[in-house]
Amino acid sequence: MKHIFTCIILIITLSSCTNVKNSKTTENQVNKKDSIVIKNIFNTALTNGQSYQWLDYLSNEIGGRLSGSHESIAAILWGERLMQDLRFDKVWLQDVMVPNWYRGEKEEASFTLNTEKYNVPICALGGSIPTPVTGITGEVIEVQNLEEVESLGEKLRGKIVFFNRPFDNTHIQTFKAYGGCVDQRYAGAMVCGKFGAIGAIVRSMTSSIDDYPHTGAMSYGDIAENEKVPTAAISTKAANLLSEKLKENPTLKFYFKQSCKTLPDEPSHNVIGELIGTEFPDKIITVGGHIDSWDLGDGSHDDGAGIVQSIEVLRLFKLNGIKPKHTIRCVLFINEENGLRGGKKYAEEAKAKNENHIAALESDSGGFTPRGFTFEATNENAELFLSWKPLLAPYGLSEIEEGHSGADIGPLKSETISLFGYRPDSQRYFDYHHAETDTFDKVNKRELELGAASMASLVYLLDTYLK
Amino acid sequence: MKHIFTCIILIITLSSCTNVKNSKTTENQVNKKDSIVIKNIFNTALTNGQSYQWLDYLSNEIGGRLSGSHESIAAILWGERLMQDLRFDKVWLQDVMVPNWYRGEKEEASFTLNTEKYNVPICALGGSIPTPVTGITGEVIEVQNLEEVESLGEKLRGKIVFFNRPFDNTHIQTFKAYGGCVDQRYAGAMVCGKFGAIGAIVRSMTSSIDDYPHTGAMSYGDIAENEKVPTAAISTKAANLLSEKLKENPTLKFYFKQSCKTLPDEPSHNVIGELIGTEFPDKIITVGGHIDSWDLGDGSHDDGAGIVQSIEVLRLFKLNGIKPKHTIRCVLFINEENGLRGGKKYAEEAKAKNENHIAALESDSGGFTPRGFTFEATNENAELFLSWKPLLAPYGLSEIEEGHSGADIGPLKSETISLFGYRPDSQRYFDYHHAETDTFDKVNKRELELGAASMASLVYLLDTYLK
Repeated sequence: MKHIFTCIILIITLSSCTNVKNSKTTENQVNKKDSIVIKNIFNTALTNGQSYQWLDYLSNEIGGRLSGSHESIAAILWGERLMQDLRFDKVWLQDVMVPNWYRGEKEEASFTLNTEKYNVPICALGGSIPTPVTGITGEVIEVQNLEEVESLGEKLRGKIVFFNRPFDNTHIQTFKAYGGCVDQRYAGAMVCGKFGAIGAIVRSMTSSIDDYPHTGAMSYGDIAENEKVPTAAISTKAANLLSEKLKENPTLKFYFKQSCKTLPDEPSHNVIGELIGTEFPDKIITVGGHIDSWDLGDGSHDDGAGIVQSIEVLRLFKLNGIKPKHTIRCVLFINEENGLRGGKKYAEEAKAKNENHIAALESDSGGFTPRGFTFEATNENAELFLSWKPLLAPYGLSEIEEGHSGADIGPLKSETISLFGYRPDSQRYFDYHHAETDTFDKVNKRELELGAASMASLVYLLDTYLK
Repeated sequence: MKHIFTCIILIITLSSCTNVKNSKTTENQVNKKDSIVIKNIFNTALTNGQSYQWLDYLSNEIGGRLSGSHESIAAILWGERLMQDLRFDKVWLQDVMVPNWYRGEKEEASFTLNTEKYNVPICALGGSIPTPVTGITGEVIEVQNLEEVESLGEKLRGKIVFFNRPFDNTHIQTFKAYGGCVDQRYAGAMVCGKFGAIGAIVRSMTSSIDDYPHTGAMSYGDIAENEKVPTAAISTKAANLLSEKLKENPTLKFYFKQSCKTLPDEPSHNVIGELIGTEFPDKIITVGGHIDSWDLGDGSHDDGAGIVQSIEVLRLFKLNGIKPKHTIRCVLFINEENGLRGGKKYAEEAKAKNENHIAALESDSGGFTPRGFTFEATNENAELFLSWKPLLAPYGLSEIEEGHSGADIGPLKSETISLFGYRPDSQRYFDYHHAETDTFDKVNKRELELGAASMASLVYLLDTYLK
């Protein structure tokens, strides 16, 4: 650590010489006070935290909670009641209509080669149309990307397109690997219907080679109804097997069946609770995650973790007697997974009411051990945030850098607001993401609690220093 | 990251002005080459790594491998064969006699309160004597530390001493919490026999509140045979329950039975393989972990991970065509857990042969996501190691600092050698440490592989720059 501290001293010295008004002594006192507050936040989170017990209830008693489902409403009411029980200054539901896609019966898929039948773990992608009740069967064309579909054109007629570009495991941040191949899942079906393909299957978005298919959002964009084809994800093991067997027999036939459907939109809600600011009640700092999840697992990491951590931030403020100068608002956004209606509605209403949002923090990268925060901000504020590194680094939060914040708070973006994403370690996230393996037993208590304390510490610094 | 890079530039500028001989251009070129080599090491580990598959075999086919057991010999022969198959330049076994403690039949424990019987998960501590075949039964005195035993003195006669000081969960590094209470396990039985206590039980060394007892080494020091009492660990849940029930009835009777015994020492081996240096074959850099484990789980994190990572370091050198200037030696030490005979023997023989060991790196903190390295070195070398931070930080290795290296390489310590410990994230380690839950399914493939690549990168830098 020596070097870092040398740096910090250098930076403090340099900044003291140039543009900091307070004397060095005052600054050190302020920093000392901050480091004590942050230490107290971590101590209470680690010895008296509630986030893990809440997540246990949300995951194991309510479970998966796709927008429009009964479970999503149960989760919303649970969140509202919890914030009331915690005596936040104000708690309310914000109405929003959400899409209502329903998986239906368990999907089936298989292919046969030399009389041997291979069953394939498969799941419909969120938003897909169903297959006919007898399923669809067709030859398979394996492709690596969307462009290849365009170049194949009419050769796709009557075929099932198999998108098989894998995760690039050389990325240290797994979100980069995800970003590098998720277009196949999101837009695969959209691009191949116009050439007469009858279906699209996609390799699951994970670096893990296993038997679990990973669902996720897809879109047909604005293509015509008759060009829409059913689409599904197969497990990575199945994708490797199918690819191998296609080399043996390029005309083997693949079968899959799914009965998902899109029902009419349903009324739903964002859950909002706040601590009202003592000095600037009209200036708002929002912290949140999304209350909906996919339906296969119980959504513990995506994004039960973000939900319970966000509520815990406000509880840690109260527990430590921190009375925020600004209003601190906890938002449990609905429908991040397949529509972002909650995030959009929250921003729309904020605009309509002329609310003054000065900062927002989102936790939607799982409940893993802390690494840091990414932010989108003005240069001046960026400098301020980077100056907090020495305060946060002792808690594993050494990666404070510019970058994407989060989907739900994205619509709040303006020239003045500072947006943050909580960044836990990313190595295990895509093992579970959107699959039936995203369950409570994959969450470590201390890791989750450290995340909540990390977020509370950042919100404390924002409340203290952000103008 | 901006600040960090500003710092780095400052440091580079400052060092260029003062004590670095090469011009800045040359230095940048060198750094660029290093960063390419390190990137290649990570790429190959993440796309073509073998450590996870090896650990699967070691954990699931051989399993727990306490010193002196058949399994420990199977593991040693497996390690030797693997290094031979990988065509290391030289592979051999180094003979060493090891203790041979044997757990015997499954332990039993219980207590009764108001006619209700509570069974307690328990395990003998490594090195303990057995109870009589009918077990022992006695009143319990709960204490928080060794000093309290001394002050209680004769009040302990005929009693079972219950050491119940818990992990301090406010430590961010869990090893600090472990260090803060492990004296109870190691020395508890040693201090209470002289006052006529009949047994000692200890709260398991973990922050997790669960049903798994955690074993580990204990010592009787040089106390008389008749002062030795049997000792065991109970689970944290059982410790909390017992403590609570003792408040209801301080005279409740606790029973436990164990049939462990210490057999005569057994012949065993360190496994050693090396790549011979092209320029300085007589200067040695050692990398290793320990091949023995406790018997309850399969020792995947402690220390199967360190073993397979150490072997992988040499394989990654070969795979990337890195021909080391110095001899790189991989050592699988035997008997770290209950004697350190392997580590001591290796250092003794190095001294006897007048070998020149310039550096050693140990991985014995689990196969978790990388955080950094600790080192023990001269001031001059410390400065060199800290200058590598910018090369390692992109891989999550931001914590490079002075600190304890490792138990097995400790005996090599001299005024000139640089000793390193690989430091993965510590949050989950003590959930599994020395318990039946330390199993292969707790290891994440990418995390393990990143650790191996981290270690190979450090060894590459040591080989390139260390004099």
